[in-house]
Amino acid sequence: MNEFNRIAHYLAPLSAGHAGAWNLKDDVALLEAHPLVISTDTIVEGVHYIGDEPADLIARKLLRCNLSDLAAKGATPLYYTLNLTLHRGQGDDWLAAFCKGLAQDQARFGLTLIGGDSTVIADGACVLSLTIYGRPQRELPRRNDAKVGDLVCVSGSLGDAAIGLRLAQGQLTLDDPAAAAHLLGRYQLPEPRIELGRQLAPLVGAAMDISDGLVQDAGHIAKASDVAIELYADKLPVSLAAKLCIDQHLVGIEDIATGGDDYEILCSLPQSHWQHAANLASKLKEGLTIIGRVTEGNGVVLLNHKSQPMALEKSGFAH
Amino acid sequence: MNEFNRIAHYLAPLSAGHAGAWNLKDDVALLEAHPLVISTDTIVEGVHYIGDEPADLIARKLLRCNLSDLAAKGATPLYYTLNLTLHRGQGDDWLAAFCKGLAQDQARFGLTLIGGDSTVIADGACVLSLTIYGRPQRELPRRNDAKVGDLVCVSGSLGDAAIGLRLAQGQLTLDDPAAAAHLLGRYQLPEPRIELGRQLAPLVGAAMDISDGLVQDAGHIAKASDVAIELYADKLPVSLAAKLCIDQHLVGIEDIATGGDDYEILCSLPQSHWQHAANLASKLKEGLTIIGRVTEGNGVVLLNHKSQPMALEKSGFAH
Repeated sequence: MNEFNRIAHYLAPLSAGHAGAWNLKDDVALLEAHPLVISTDTIVEGVHYIGDEPADLIARKLLRCNLSDLAAKGATPLYYTLNLTLHRGQGDDWLAAFCKGLAQDQARFGLTLIGGDSTVIADGACVLSLTIYGRPQRELPRRNDAKVGDLVCVSGSLGDAAIGLRLAQGQLTLDDPAAAAHLLGRYQLPEPRIELGRQLAPLVGAAMDISDGLVQDAGHIAKASDVAIELYADKLPVSLAAKLCIDQHLVGIEDIATGGDDYEILCSLPQSHWQHAANLASKLKEGLTIIGRVTEGNGVVLLNHKSQPMALEKSGFAH
Repeated sequence: MNEFNRIAHYLAPLSAGHAGAWNLKDDVALLEAHPLVISTDTIVEGVHYIGDEPADLIARKLLRCNLSDLAAKGATPLYYTLNLTLHRGQGDDWLAAFCKGLAQDQARFGLTLIGGDSTVIADGACVLSLTIYGRPQRELPRRNDAKVGDLVCVSGSLGDAAIGLRLAQGQLTLDDPAAAAHLLGRYQLPEPRIELGRQLAPLVGAAMDISDGLVQDAGHIAKASDVAIELYADKLPVSLAAKLCIDQHLVGIEDIATGGDDYEILCSLPQSHWQHAANLASKLKEGLTIIGRVTEGNGVVLLNHKSQPMALEKSGFAH
């Protein structure tokens, strides 16, 4: 199929939910007046994902990386646009699978495709950009709202995806298939905490999603808020599978604290809001864990169980 | 500089015009409630531009390709987001020049950068996506509003950029330096007809910008509107430089009618609106030329001076 037929056949059905997308038959999309939260992420073959992963999982990961940004800001997902730069080998079957993955997560998260652009290249890495549009709440948690004395909390569990990536790359082997599958799944398919983020937004100070590693992203909040953040290594929430890896000395807690691709919500919270926040999370059956606190000063320190600062080789993922 | 410093140093200053961009220090941007027209385009090194062009011109071309979409829809440019996938060799100097080009056209077209993402890759083509946001008028010209009996009009001149590309690639040489410079300039730096498009919007039926060649893009209007379009080869507006190339038999009128990168406005217009439209264009010192008419049927036909259909090898640019 040529470019136009591919758009009409595979992508246009994903735009059915928004009349102003005009079935992807025009050059522009039209949005009625409402405030919007906008976020955009690019993933590159060989950098953010391994090229031979199933196309539907790549699509869903791309969507979920962006959903995770909205989640941390308490926004409700509405629309997205896509910029696909594919190579020739990614033919109709690949695109069909990619769009099937999008359709699956569109249905789950209530999203509609409203536009985009696609290019086919002869060689080079495949580059996939997605821009997401959400409806904000009245208060949008920023990075610069952490206050001295606040608790630092995180959703879900940390480090799973970083271990999953090492499994996928063959850098690590694990003799427990269920644990390996869990970790790999967490790498391939992050879980954006949309509803948790939405309910937490009115309670938190600063909030962002962790994509480049806890320590590095906590550093962004510390810097933007002009505060220091203490994190407690023995409080970091880890899955049973990650715990198994730690117990077998396959990874250390430093790997958990600095590994990328967590896509969990990191937030600061006045102590007085903690019980309310914990109850919300519990009702949603989501994890929410106190992992540190905001102090005076600057930078991020990871403290061991003796409250001593741990030396870190790197703080997180840098391109 | 690392990724964060590059953003802070080169890109953040471009966001100064919009408070909700938060100086590019957060994961999201916030837009207040208003209707928006959204368009997005990706340009790829080696496909849409030649890699060794000056970075400021690449930036301005990327911005202007997107501005051209807004122009055809009569929208006023407001904001844009950027997704940059650069290779390692595109260091700080390259980015500084790229951002200088953006700043120059931001000032000219009243735009503000509000967010984005950047990735550096080891090899492969550089991929640049830009998503633009504009304020629509009450009536937004679509592709499907051409009516039988309408005139078909085009702004500016056609074919310059396609000839300019052939000059840049060394496929063509021209012994007139001024003409060559004009054609190359039209390839490197399209001129989005923002004000003309804004004033024409209430008068036109269908409208779109020509990016993939007149015949192919006219075909999109014909198909969307369920009509046929007749184009008159001897009416196509060409610059003096393009005329020189035609007279020297370096290119034919078919090349003018099918070459890409024109970034002119193609529109249909009721005959009764023509004089008004021509007066508007004249006041703006912009070209506007009747090049055909809308008829019953389907498809696009290019007629020679004897009103005979011309055979075309290709209708336009396809990836």
